[in-house]
Amino acid sequence: MNSFGRLFRVEIFGESHGPAVGAIVDGCPPGIPLGVADLEADLARRRSGKSGTTDRREADEPELLSGVHGGRSTGSPILVAFRNADTRSEDYDAFVRVPRPGHADFSSRVKYRGFADPRGSGHFSGRVTAGLVAAGAIAKKVVGFASFETCLLEAGGRQDIESAAAEAKLAGDSIGGLVEIRVRGLPPGLGEPFFDAAEAVIAHALFAVPAVRGVEFGDGFAAARMRGSEHNDPFVNRSGKTSKNGSGGINGGITNGNELVVRVAVKPASTISAPQRTLDFGTGEETTLAPGGRHDACIALRSAVVLEAAVAISLADLYLANTAASAACAAAPEGESK
Amino acid sequence: MNSFGRLFRVEIFGESHGPAVGAIVDGCPPGIPLGVADLEADLARRRSGKSGTTDRREADEPELLSGVHGGRSTGSPILVAFRNADTRSEDYDAFVRVPRPGHADFSSRVKYRGFADPRGSGHFSGRVTAGLVAAGAIAKKVVGFASFETCLLEAGGRQDIESAAAEAKLAGDSIGGLVEIRVRGLPPGLGEPFFDAAEAVIAHALFAVPAVRGVEFGDGFAAARMRGSEHNDPFVNRSGKTSKNGSGGINGGITNGNELVVRVAVKPASTISAPQRTLDFGTGEETTLAPGGRHDACIALRSAVVLEAAVAISLADLYLANTAASAACAAAPEGESK
Amino acid sequence: MNSFGRLFRVEIFGESHGPAVGAIVDGCPPGIPLGVADLEADLARRRSGKSGTTDRREADEPELLSGVHGGRSTGSPILVAFRNADTRSEDYDAFVRVPRPGHADFSSRVKYRGFADPRGSGHFSGRVTAGLVAAGAIAKKVVGFASFETCLLEAGGRQDIESAAAEAKLAGDSIGGLVEIRVRGLPPGLGEPFFDAAEAVIAHALFAVPAVRGVEFGDGFAAARMRGSEHNDPFVNRSGKTSKNGSGGINGGITNGNELVVRVAVKPASTISAPQRTLDFGTGEETTLAPGGRHDACIALRSAVVLEAAVAISLADLYLANTAASAACAAAPEGESK
Amino acid sequence: MNSFGRLFRVEIFGESHGPAVGAIVDGCPPGIPLGVADLEADLARRRSGKSGTTDRREADEPELLSGVHGGRSTGSPILVAFRNADTRSEDYDAFVRVPRPGHADFSSRVKYRGFADPRGSGHFSGRVTAGLVAAGAIAKKVVGFASFETCLLEAGGRQDIESAAAEAKLAGDSIGGLVEIRVRGLPPGLGEPFFDAAEAVIAHALFAVPAVRGVEFGDGFAAARMRGSEHNDPFVNRSGKTSKNGSGGINGGITNGNELVVRVAVKPASTISAPQRTLDFGTGEETTLAPGGRHDACIALRSAVVLEAAVAISLADLYLANTAASAACAAAPEGESK
Repeated sequence: MNSFGRLFRVEIFGESHGPAVGAIVDGCPPGIPLGVADLEADLARRRSGKSGTTDRREADEPELLSGVHGGRSTGSPILVAFRNADTRSEDYDAFVRVPRPGHADFSSRVKYRGFADPRGSGHFSGRVTAGLVAAGAIAKKVVGFASFETCLLEAGGRQDIESAAAEAKLAGDSIGGLVEIRVRGLPPGLGEPFFDAAEAVIAHALFAVPAVRGVEFGDGFAAARMRGSEHNDPFVNRSGKTSKNGSGGINGGITNGNELVVRVAVKPASTISAPQRTLDFGTGEETTLAPGGRHDACIALRSAVVLEAAVAISLADLYLANTAASAACAAAPEGESK
Repeated sequence: MNSFGRLFRVEIFGESHGPAVGAIVDGCPPGIPLGVADLEADLARRRSGKSGTTDRREADEPELLSGVHGGRSTGSPILVAFRNADTRSEDYDAFVRVPRPGHADFSSRVKYRGFADPRGSGHFSGRVTAGLVAAGAIAKKVVGFASFETCLLEAGGRQDIESAAAEAKLAGDSIGGLVEIRVRGLPPGLGEPFFDAAEAVIAHALFAVPAVRGVEFGDGFAAARMRGSEHNDPFVNRSGKTSKNGSGGINGGITNGNELVVRVAVKPASTISAPQRTLDFGTGEETTLAPGGRHDACIALRSAVVLEAAVAISLADLYLANTAASAACAAAPEGESK
Repeated sequence: MNSFGRLFRVEIFGESHGPAVGAIVDGCPPGIPLGVADLEADLARRRSGKSGTTDRREADEPELLSGVHGGRSTGSPILVAFRNADTRSEDYDAFVRVPRPGHADFSSRVKYRGFADPRGSGHFSGRVTAGLVAAGAIAKKVVGFASFETCLLEAGGRQDIESAAAEAKLAGDSIGGLVEIRVRGLPPGLGEPFFDAAEAVIAHALFAVPAVRGVEFGDGFAAARMRGSEHNDPFVNRSGKTSKNGSGGINGGITNGNELVVRVAVKPASTISAPQRTLDFGTGEETTLAPGGRHDACIALRSAVVLEAAVAISLADLYLANTAASAACAAAPEGESK
Repeated sequence: MNSFGRLFRVEIFGESHGPAVGAIVDGCPPGIPLGVADLEADLARRRSGKSGTTDRREADEPELLSGVHGGRSTGSPILVAFRNADTRSEDYDAFVRVPRPGHADFSSRVKYRGFADPRGSGHFSGRVTAGLVAAGAIAKKVVGFASFETCLLEAGGRQDIESAAAEAKLAGDSIGGLVEIRVRGLPPGLGEPFFDAAEAVIAHALFAVPAVRGVEFGDGFAAARMRGSEHNDPFVNRSGKTSKNGSGGINGGITNGNELVVRVAVKPASTISAPQRTLDFGTGEETTLAPGGRHDACIALRSAVVLEAAVAISLADLYLANTAASAACAAAPEGESK
């Protein structure tokens, strides 16, 4: 389904060329200072127009249609909506017949039996992530004690990201990228052993972001080649601080109070202008596809803030769940069992 | 929480040295041929005693306590329980005071305020995965059209896995491993764009398995260094078959009918006999920990079937959800909107 | 939380005097003919201005902001929003200090710590049910095989409803009412024994509607005074038809194919103009409350279509769940267990 | 599905004549004193053998198979199982062919396609409520500040319950009953406006109990015939105490700190020895059914503690949800929105 979370619940809606996109956030505690200005910084990071990204320009002005009163959250569901304006639907019609390699054109047509909105990739558009970013900005206020630091480590295998993206754009091609998200200030205790391990919940949200191919925590895939004596993190003080952080801040599915470190592999955008061989599902014959339209040469540039939002949403949910458990534990009856 | 799935729901219970471990499966359709013998093959793969794994020996004889009648599932919840027998609790008491580096000893003590069962790592024990394997065996019957192929590609960075594990054991150390799971025969259409993308649901289940540090699909982390023209999979026939499989069988969060390919990084077991520097939380001083007890030199050997079970459970859930949507779609009213 | 349903999921948002109210519907199968005109009939039934109801007038013009394309549902979340226009916030400010007897003023202030939007009762307003009615209209399309018949059996204990409401209005008072909903054409098999019995799911949705005090099925409370030989419904043909319908169409939590019959007790609106004794929470002294503002003399008049919507939403969810189970059952593997 | 609750989650399993029945409780906070002795008082209330109930005798000895260590809950899932012993399966076989009027025989056969365990009504047996009672006893420890008082107000329309039940038994018939549950000591603030109103969650759990036909709160169905000036509850002090309790302790879906009052209509047991006309689904002809076997003359006698357990489970879940929200609210960041 299109919702996420147990206590801090987010649902995404909208199609690229429909009337609006956005998100609804349920479970935000009341009393949190919140206005559209609080969403602006992250939306600006996501906004199109940067080098290496699509030329589509949207004002991305969010409306808070419910759940906020007097500059604070009320405890009721918060609806954030973005009206769509700059739409050019004619670009996309052909993909129903010749689905793009690597894209959801084919699989979504099967799933939705041809009824999905094909315009601008509809509900599969990167445009839809605007709602996720807004929800992430709200989530960050819930876990206001935590600080997020996200960077694109490399793109197309290179650290010189700007020029790698420019080259790909010139070639009518696209490149993938590697995003790292670090979160400091998390308390120990977030996550459940089965099945809602902190990694499991965070990875769930991250893989929901379009174009993600891999997720790893701490030493990640390198840990598969390590010995326990190398990978284990010795404790150095009673607050649980460790001298290294191979686990990325999570032991046994539960945060240990050290920095959370997660890396995400973002694939190259599937829509490219360079010609690709693929199938014409109308004729059943091979054909060459070279779509026009606006494309991202390096979606990882914009994915960074979206992935950060996904992590923030996960952490807000894990935090509220743990808060509930802790408070109930504190309120539990004294005494012995019979 | 300790449950997983929307329509095929699995909940895991039990502690390593408590009376029993197991799983309860809700949502298994009625009429599926099922008996304890159907669980045996996978349980045998998981069972202890193989080279490189712990010396603990459990008969692992499952009991089907509910939900099965006359050799078939009834549609009611299926409870699979394994009685614990071979327990040696004295091994583990010290870890409350000196938590093992890399282990849940510390984080679980914070979370459960000292009330978690510490014996044999309690609910965090690898023993608990017996229930997951049993649930996975049931899940495979639900997706009986699919075939699973799982292998340990390497351990400790080497393909000579037996000797790598033997060396680590001799050194009182442990090694990680890389597991690959391939599933053939899946229909296109499994998964939802937000948030229950097929990768998201599968990764959620995989990261719930102890010791997982990374998950990648298809080209995985390599995709971050690729160009779209390299990574994209051209379609070659109308059933959606592609000439290569960089996406690992999933486009836009929805299976495309090609082989599902997922790789999982398993870290080395945190409990090792070789001495490790860490903190004595009693004195607040550094100390050296060299636990006795029974340990796995290479848990990835046993993780393989557990991870396969996690994938099977995810797929059973995604399959039932998609079946529901498809059937409802087929039953939807004709005609036009007003 | 503010959502309902497992497969046909509805979430309600909005405050009476905020920018908008509405609902988001996730899980609606793709391909269902749907436009704003399809919502009109039920919204007209709910709309204010009828005798006995509030004088507030809203155009109640829904916008379909997502999930619909080309006159049909796409399978993505459907967002229905109603902009608020005719608001007079000054009426309600005093209720923060002197909470209305019988109203959520007090309990919501405790729960939301004073941050809930008090204007027009905020998220507790009857206005919010517009979204429920819209979601119900969509649900009815999903269970297009079923026909709904809802009537207000009595109000204020009288069958002459118009005049009872008029009298109450004249007295500055309000009256309750008894609503009966009948649904024909349901297939047998909807509902789960524990905990999602058909009655349980339907009652959950009904009690979520403001002002509901009781729910009963078939013989209802009268069954508590009956003998089994009176209450039991003899079967008369192999399709499960019974000669009477004391069970209201549900046996063991599962629909039996007979007419669903449910009755709902709606309390009188708590806001009345006649003076009431209650507490001034500011002074801690007793006071007399006689609010102005716009009030319903008989909310049951408008509740009828809202309650019908709640039943429709429940049935859509139960239907999709049963469809999933049936389809999976049909697809289950042949053969024997080992 | 067969589970209930968001934070305090209960799942019921087992069939009347299968190996075991019971419940699994997830989300119980760690550190709560708990042992089998704590379940005994409620199980004793439920146990068969009282006047007016079935002659089946089960020791009803619960086993706590997980989630408890050292006399306290650990925070992991708690599995309570009851082995079945006294089974006489031959009594029930005929009901597959001639389904009992008023019973789930027919509707469950349709739903489960003939695969449900028919012995002793399988998963539909009253026996299965043993797990619910055990879960309720655990729930009561979570809401240890609340006191429960439950009574059977009348049976078969009479207050002389013992003799009414005896008469019905003599006549080979059964009688219904009216159960009232009162809970004192609840804090204000439990419940959500949409959809998890306190009444909605409690009614959901109550209607999951077999044989429930109606649920009402406070004035209940009588409120439908009242005026607002009669039904409203004036506040008398700042803690929210009211001078009367027509609302049954809930305003706007949220508890107000007054006594919770709920009444439940329990229908007469459908299985009676007196002959009933119904259909032989084998021949398609009418027939007379007069089953032997063990039957309850007045199931309401045993339902009382089961219904109380359902209320306790609901309240534990609502309490943990509210605790989470409150704690998060308290931890929310200070300051203004941008």
